[in-house]
Amino acid sequence: MTDTTTLAAPETRSSPEEQSGPVRLVDRSRTALVPATRGRITDGLWAERRRVNREVSLTTGWDRLHEAGNFLNLELAAGQHEGTPYVGSLPFLDSDLYKWLEALAWTLADPDLDAQATAQLEEFLTTSAQVLEAAQAEDGYLDSWFQVNFPGERFVQLAWGHELYCAGHLIQAAVALHRTRGDARLLDVARRVADLVVRSFGSGPGRVDGIDGHPEVESALVELYRETGERSYLDAARFFVDRRGHGLLGGHSFGGHYFQDHAPVREATSVEGHSVRQVYLLAGVADLYVEDGDETLRDAAGRLWHEMVATKTYVTGGIGTHHSDEAFGDPYELTNERSYCETCAAIGSVMFSWRMLMITGEARYADLVERTLYNGFLAGLSLDGQRYIYANPLQVREGHMAGGNDRDYARKPWFKCACCPPNVMRTLASLEHYVVLGGADGLRVHQFVAGSWTAPVGDGEATVSVETDYPWDGRVRVRVEDSPGTWGLTVRVPHWAASATVTVNGDAVTAEPVEGWLTVTRAWAPGDELVLDLPLEPRFTRADSRVDADRASVALERGPVVYCFEAVDNAGHRLDDVVIDVTGPVAVAPTDADLPSDVVTLAAQGHVRPRPAEGWWPYADASAPEPAAGETVTLTAVPYYVWGNRTEGAMRIWTPAE
Amino acid sequence: MTDTTTLAAPETRSSPEEQSGPVRLVDRSRTALVPATRGRITDGLWAERRRVNREVSLTTGWDRLHEAGNFLNLELAAGQHEGTPYVGSLPFLDSDLYKWLEALAWTLADPDLDAQATAQLEEFLTTSAQVLEAAQAEDGYLDSWFQVNFPGERFVQLAWGHELYCAGHLIQAAVALHRTRGDARLLDVARRVADLVVRSFGSGPGRVDGIDGHPEVESALVELYRETGERSYLDAARFFVDRRGHGLLGGHSFGGHYFQDHAPVREATSVEGHSVRQVYLLAGVADLYVEDGDETLRDAAGRLWHEMVATKTYVTGGIGTHHSDEAFGDPYELTNERSYCETCAAIGSVMFSWRMLMITGEARYADLVERTLYNGFLAGLSLDGQRYIYANPLQVREGHMAGGNDRDYARKPWFKCACCPPNVMRTLASLEHYVVLGGADGLRVHQFVAGSWTAPVGDGEATVSVETDYPWDGRVRVRVEDSPGTWGLTVRVPHWAASATVTVNGDAVTAEPVEGWLTVTRAWAPGDELVLDLPLEPRFTRADSRVDADRASVALERGPVVYCFEAVDNAGHRLDDVVIDVTGPVAVAPTDADLPSDVVTLAAQGHVRPRPAEGWWPYADASAPEPAAGETVTLTAVPYYVWGNRTEGAMRIWTPAE
Repeated sequence: MTDTTTLAAPETRSSPEEQSGPVRLVDRSRTALVPATRGRITDGLWAERRRVNREVSLTTGWDRLHEAGNFLNLELAAGQHEGTPYVGSLPFLDSDLYKWLEALAWTLADPDLDAQATAQLEEFLTTSAQVLEAAQAEDGYLDSWFQVNFPGERFVQLAWGHELYCAGHLIQAAVALHRTRGDARLLDVARRVADLVVRSFGSGPGRVDGIDGHPEVESALVELYRETGERSYLDAARFFVDRRGHGLLGGHSFGGHYFQDHAPVREATSVEGHSVRQVYLLAGVADLYVEDGDETLRDAAGRLWHEMVATKTYVTGGIGTHHSDEAFGDPYELTNERSYCETCAAIGSVMFSWRMLMITGEARYADLVERTLYNGFLAGLSLDGQRYIYANPLQVREGHMAGGNDRDYARKPWFKCACCPPNVMRTLASLEHYVVLGGADGLRVHQFVAGSWTAPVGDGEATVSVETDYPWDGRVRVRVEDSPGTWGLTVRVPHWAASATVTVNGDAVTAEPVEGWLTVTRAWAPGDELVLDLPLEPRFTRADSRVDADRASVALERGPVVYCFEAVDNAGHRLDDVVIDVTGPVAVAPTDADLPSDVVTLAAQGHVRPRPAEGWWPYADASAPEPAAGETVTLTAVPYYVWGNRTEGAMRIWTPAE
Repeated sequence: MTDTTTLAAPETRSSPEEQSGPVRLVDRSRTALVPATRGRITDGLWAERRRVNREVSLTTGWDRLHEAGNFLNLELAAGQHEGTPYVGSLPFLDSDLYKWLEALAWTLADPDLDAQATAQLEEFLTTSAQVLEAAQAEDGYLDSWFQVNFPGERFVQLAWGHELYCAGHLIQAAVALHRTRGDARLLDVARRVADLVVRSFGSGPGRVDGIDGHPEVESALVELYRETGERSYLDAARFFVDRRGHGLLGGHSFGGHYFQDHAPVREATSVEGHSVRQVYLLAGVADLYVEDGDETLRDAAGRLWHEMVATKTYVTGGIGTHHSDEAFGDPYELTNERSYCETCAAIGSVMFSWRMLMITGEARYADLVERTLYNGFLAGLSLDGQRYIYANPLQVREGHMAGGNDRDYARKPWFKCACCPPNVMRTLASLEHYVVLGGADGLRVHQFVAGSWTAPVGDGEATVSVETDYPWDGRVRVRVEDSPGTWGLTVRVPHWAASATVTVNGDAVTAEPVEGWLTVTRAWAPGDELVLDLPLEPRFTRADSRVDADRASVALERGPVVYCFEAVDNAGHRLDDVVIDVTGPVAVAPTDADLPSDVVTLAAQGHVRPRPAEGWWPYADASAPEPAAGETVTLTAVPYYVWGNRTEGAMRIWTPAE
């Protein structure tokens, strides 16, 4: 075990102006856009979610990680306890801790964190770093599940062992801490792990020619290369990407597709298998392209993104249809009942899309990031920050929650497989990095979040502040705070916002958006203000006719927010029986007192189909008259992401339309 | 181990006129209808399926049971081999053998079996009986999985061990052999097992207060009581029914509902959990009611049947929506993509419905038996009798079979969990028993199958022969061969056959069907003929509007046969793109040369929707114009049960309608 007395004191970061986000590009020649160097979220929906994340989720996370045995298993690996291995564990349990540590690291860089909270999180961090150092073996190996259950075993159970997956999350936590604070405690541990991986894997003699069943280490190794400059990490990432798809993982009852091991990524024509694995892999592929310049990787990532989005993505941005293998379905197989839409898959989709946005500069990637953040991702966390949902349904029927079906759809404080909760935490904690990008020709505001951002603009940097109550209000004020001269200030015009308007210092801008971007190039001066007005009229949306699950139905959307009907707001009739009148008005309605007051509630018109009086067989001759339209009703809709926070009951997004 | 030298020679059955089917009622006071005493299927679809079952499936079954290790594991249990336990086994592997033995037993009673085949099946039977006798422990215990893996363990792992489930299938095989041939070899083994169960389970001191995770033994013990007169078997069946629903099985990740252990059957208001377990349990509940007279059991079975059929049954008669737990979904959760519809569940549904038909005399139970046999059940077996399907989808999309999704939908020679193949065999082998029933007021022909049947009619017996090419032709000729005087000859008028007509000796019968039955009471004489003409015009069917998966779609049916569109018959366009014109004609079309020549093929009219020219997001404003109707096409439909016999490709039953 490592001598814990060698612990270095945390350094204060010496160069705060350097980009500190979750992706720091070394070679910027292959991206159209580059990360902002600084960002701060100050107000609105996301500031509130991040406050709850800081104040509630991170501290309850400490408790849950102790209750669930994650700390215990590391202490067992460190020899700090005698006794039997922790039997409740799963091979990836260390990664829960690492994701939570990554969230701590990003949060510690948050200027809104007060001294008391800082002290508490630092104590969490110190305790965690100490147990990791104590548990790490002499040769750098660190994976408590294997150390406790299979002492001395190294990189043998690759298909299911998650050793490199865990290593990847350790690396990401370590990079976050080092990048934001210059604190090398986790980085030292992570480098020893990474060095062991570099020494152990490869195609030469005595090396393991293998890959991990769960991608994750690929992105992490690229990031570690970015943080340290050590090219062997980049080489290892390339090895893992290149060797995937050659059947190294052996068989699987779901087929090699489950692991994306059925075809090399450059040859794959569709996203397949376990959806988290797939998008994590593709995020790593995108990272590798940026530093490595292999255009076949960029092309594969773009091709697979488009296949995924056009045929395998829910209106919420959620991905993954199947429960049994947490996997993508066939093209257009997007059933709402039993939609899987794992929260982690939404996070992985954001990671992947955000990288593609930087590489290509195409607004559609930011459109999907926005949709996924406000819907498929945010639904994974309760409003109080203490309960999570693993699989996010687009429809829950009457009686489901009380019935015998699996209860994946109930919000829970933690899970046996607790991948999602700390993944939500690290995403919220680093969210300021997903808002603004810079580039040769200017600065792009691609998400509409209140706060301030600094981004590279040509050879200099520009700073803007954003004031908005988006997504509840469509006005987004972008104020120039610091300007390097003449540059383009670009705002994204979402694909649903055809009638958006822009003014600069009060004057209308007549330029039309080009492929989702509207750019105003001028000699920007501090105090100049660009105002984007996005149309937030509620709108009914229909699906491609090949999506069988949505046939003759509509979804209700307003801005980037997908709405749902929840039983608690629509008492007196079953959601199963409701039909929407798409020609009727949709109005803003009072918001339930048990929801945050800023949430916009909508009221639509419809009616309730009467239940058949009698009958044992639910199929009838198609030429028989349909049951008459029943009672006319006003239907109350709330944003999908707030569902399941009040009572457990029926809910649906897609609703029959007339 | 039992001394194999004590093997008794098979007796020839002394009283062939006694009822020999899979259910022999002891107390007939609680059933409206009683089983036929003799039946023989001579022609048509079912005769052909039974020929293939005899000639192909049973003999390949012998090979598969050897290849898969079922025999090996019993030989290990018998101490006939040294070496390591058979690691590929599952706890219920003995039951595969038992179901196949039951199929052998029914087949050996088939008058169409030739001498050579008889000799081969008898050799199979003798070999099997010998290994079972050798493997059985002194105390009667027989379960090779436990004997090999947990020697000496008895009835401890009840939730997953399947010991009583296996015992139940052994009993059913033994009863079939004894009932048809008077051959007691298996019955002696089975009684020793049953006696051990009777001694071991109960609520008294030293007894195991437990139930099996998989119902099956309940029906079997009632049957064993019927065969032997030993009331302790009936008492044990009652114990297992009564004790279910009290949480004895402990927790389960899917909840106690999975095992139907969440509520006592008398209190349950809905079918829940694993669908095979649920219908096997309810078949046993129905059996218990008949012999035991507990009307709360009858009421529960009827209530749950209606809930199942009205809200959780596919148009094919298939049941079970979920893959992950092979379970019923919520009411109206009947997704076609990923419909589970396990073949064994269809068989269990037939077992349950047939018992309810006898108890109540209500035709709807026979309607569901018919629908399930021709569709959800028959689809589980390939036309060549050598490949099976475990989960029966109602829809398979383009590319699914080549893609990465689970391949449950490909027909395979056998399975690791091979419950379905021998279950199909035993069902086909005993099918003559599911056709005609007798009763106080006459004889009822409830299924339309060519052959001859004898059934109790009042105090006597009547014999009828049936001539028909149903389901391809709607004419069913029922000829009286032997008559005890005046009685009612009843034919079922299926719920879809409103315009059915009946003649007797050529004269029209003006009586209307009453609740699905049409009865002609007269002094029937040998040679009298009742002719039922059923309308077989193809018809489009729609689903209850609460079935989201079928919205704005239709199924095409003809008689009891549900049709599907298969890619192999509809080359040149994707089934995903097809829309049916329900106002257009549907005609009989030539049948593909690779299908049996008697299969009726249909041709419907429709068109192909053009694919969107471009687009990354499959959702659009609902007020935008729908894509124009595309090319007009003729769509070829084949009976669902023949799908997947030619090429692996797309298939769908429910199709968008205009």
